[in-house]
Amino acid sequence: MDMIRIFCPATVSNLSCGFDVLGLALEEVGDEMTIRRTSGSELSILQSEGPEIPLDPDQNVAGVAARSLLDHLGIQDGFAIEIAKRIKPGSGIGSSAASAAGAVWGLNQMLGTPLSNQELLTHAMTGEAVASNAWHADNVAPCLLGGFVLIRSYDPLDVIQLSFPKDLALAIIHPHLEIKTAESRARLGDKILLKNAVAQWGNLGGLISGLASGDHGLISRSLEDHVAEPLRKHQIPRFDAMKSAAIEAGALGFGISGSGPSVYALCKGLDPAKEIGRHIAHSFEPQGIPFDLYCSRIHPEGIRIIP
Amino acid sequence: MDMIRIFCPATVSNLSCGFDVLGLALEEVGDEMTIRRTSGSELSILQSEGPEIPLDPDQNVAGVAARSLLDHLGIQDGFAIEIAKRIKPGSGIGSSAASAAGAVWGLNQMLGTPLSNQELLTHAMTGEAVASNAWHADNVAPCLLGGFVLIRSYDPLDVIQLSFPKDLALAIIHPHLEIKTAESRARLGDKILLKNAVAQWGNLGGLISGLASGDHGLISRSLEDHVAEPLRKHQIPRFDAMKSAAIEAGALGFGISGSGPSVYALCKGLDPAKEIGRHIAHSFEPQGIPFDLYCSRIHPEGIRIIP
Repeated sequence: MDMIRIFCPATVSNLSCGFDVLGLALEEVGDEMTIRRTSGSELSILQSEGPEIPLDPDQNVAGVAARSLLDHLGIQDGFAIEIAKRIKPGSGIGSSAASAAGAVWGLNQMLGTPLSNQELLTHAMTGEAVASNAWHADNVAPCLLGGFVLIRSYDPLDVIQLSFPKDLALAIIHPHLEIKTAESRARLGDKILLKNAVAQWGNLGGLISGLASGDHGLISRSLEDHVAEPLRKHQIPRFDAMKSAAIEAGALGFGISGSGPSVYALCKGLDPAKEIGRHIAHSFEPQGIPFDLYCSRIHPEGIRIIP
Repeated sequence: MDMIRIFCPATVSNLSCGFDVLGLALEEVGDEMTIRRTSGSELSILQSEGPEIPLDPDQNVAGVAARSLLDHLGIQDGFAIEIAKRIKPGSGIGSSAASAAGAVWGLNQMLGTPLSNQELLTHAMTGEAVASNAWHADNVAPCLLGGFVLIRSYDPLDVIQLSFPKDLALAIIHPHLEIKTAESRARLGDKILLKNAVAQWGNLGGLISGLASGDHGLISRSLEDHVAEPLRKHQIPRFDAMKSAAIEAGALGFGISGSGPSVYALCKGLDPAKEIGRHIAHSFEPQGIPFDLYCSRIHPEGIRIIP
């Protein structure tokens, strides 16, 4: 295969009670990536669309992820990776993960799938670490594997694909604000109250049980965050107002996507998600900050070839 | 109904990654309780078997739980509760919970089941608080509801009955040691490292996903405790040796039951549990402390009438 064109979905991680361990892949929001073989032995990064990204392959998450994979496989061929960057960097819906995961998934396809998607994870994480300065999988894993995933463990890495009701959909508001992930993480400190930790794992257990059994009421009751949201929500203007609007309009839950600034509402059905999205947007508008609204189902596959 | 005779199962709580939120009901280990109507308006406690328990209804967990229920229902009839106490108090397998839950469940049956088992929970918890000085549900809930339960939340109380593979069984060793629950809890402190909390909720998520999908490998990998076991295991002689023996003999996981001193091995099948129990016992014997060994399936029903 000399060329591949793929869709690399945006992802929502953390999801209230799932800090650092949960993520899901969106269906209708994502980057496009085209990878071509070249005659030399170089990796090159091109950009066809979107906010400017580094084109030096050693500074670009897709380049670093691709290099990690190619070195692992002992492949010295040249490839050009062209990115249509539609997920804004810094939005909190997995922009760098889409590039890192897309590069390794696309190359793996072109090379005859020598590795499984699970095996691609560490290479994608190596790429993403360039952007986030952290070793985390809660965006690259759902991007690569699709659906709703749990990072059970980082050492060893153990990523579980969860069962979930197929009618779930999300409304996402991305306020055009900059939140530095490192600062957002520093807010949390190194320790948490045991009672908050217990409340969090009770909810995480409830969420996973509810997802498995298709119990929307249990999913809804479980979407509480006792750890990050209380400390981080102040970085997002009108957070409480948006949350109230979402819940009143019928959302199952509402919280911060990743470390923000995007916020998500989990909903039962795509049409309700669109309606709930309008209510959240209406509640955010008086703030006067530009924003994007995305509504999407969860995609069971993650990255996929564009026919 | 003027008389009822019931089996009140022992319960295993915490279960490694499920500190304060998980519990399960055993099939073959438990107390017997006989409740009879009496002519007066008094509650009385009788004991037919086992280590001495308080017979003053205001000091006895069954008495306090029964009084809470009867007051709630406005019932002033007299009842005599006779307990064959086969679960040793202080064993860490829900001795007080069996008495508290048994009293309210049995009375509720005699009164024509005015309350659901979920509604009985707070009355049983009121009784158990007499013994443990704490408001917790991780023994009374599985005792009342049966099976494997998750306490998603205490405020409001929300107890979830989990799906689990029917072949699970446990081997339990109860070393005849006294561990004071309050001291055991004090060891934990009020705060934990965020990274340990994340590891714990990753494992709890994995366990609940594995229980729901019948993935024994995932159940096994998830039975890790980053919170209580590292601090509490030193209270139990030969803990590490017993754990190694259990895992080498094929246990899915091994940890402290409740706050100890009992330890449990979760196993795939009752015969393997018996074999694994022998290995754990063999590993504990050199310590020279008397102990009991119990092997049991998980019972889906919890408290039940003895025909």
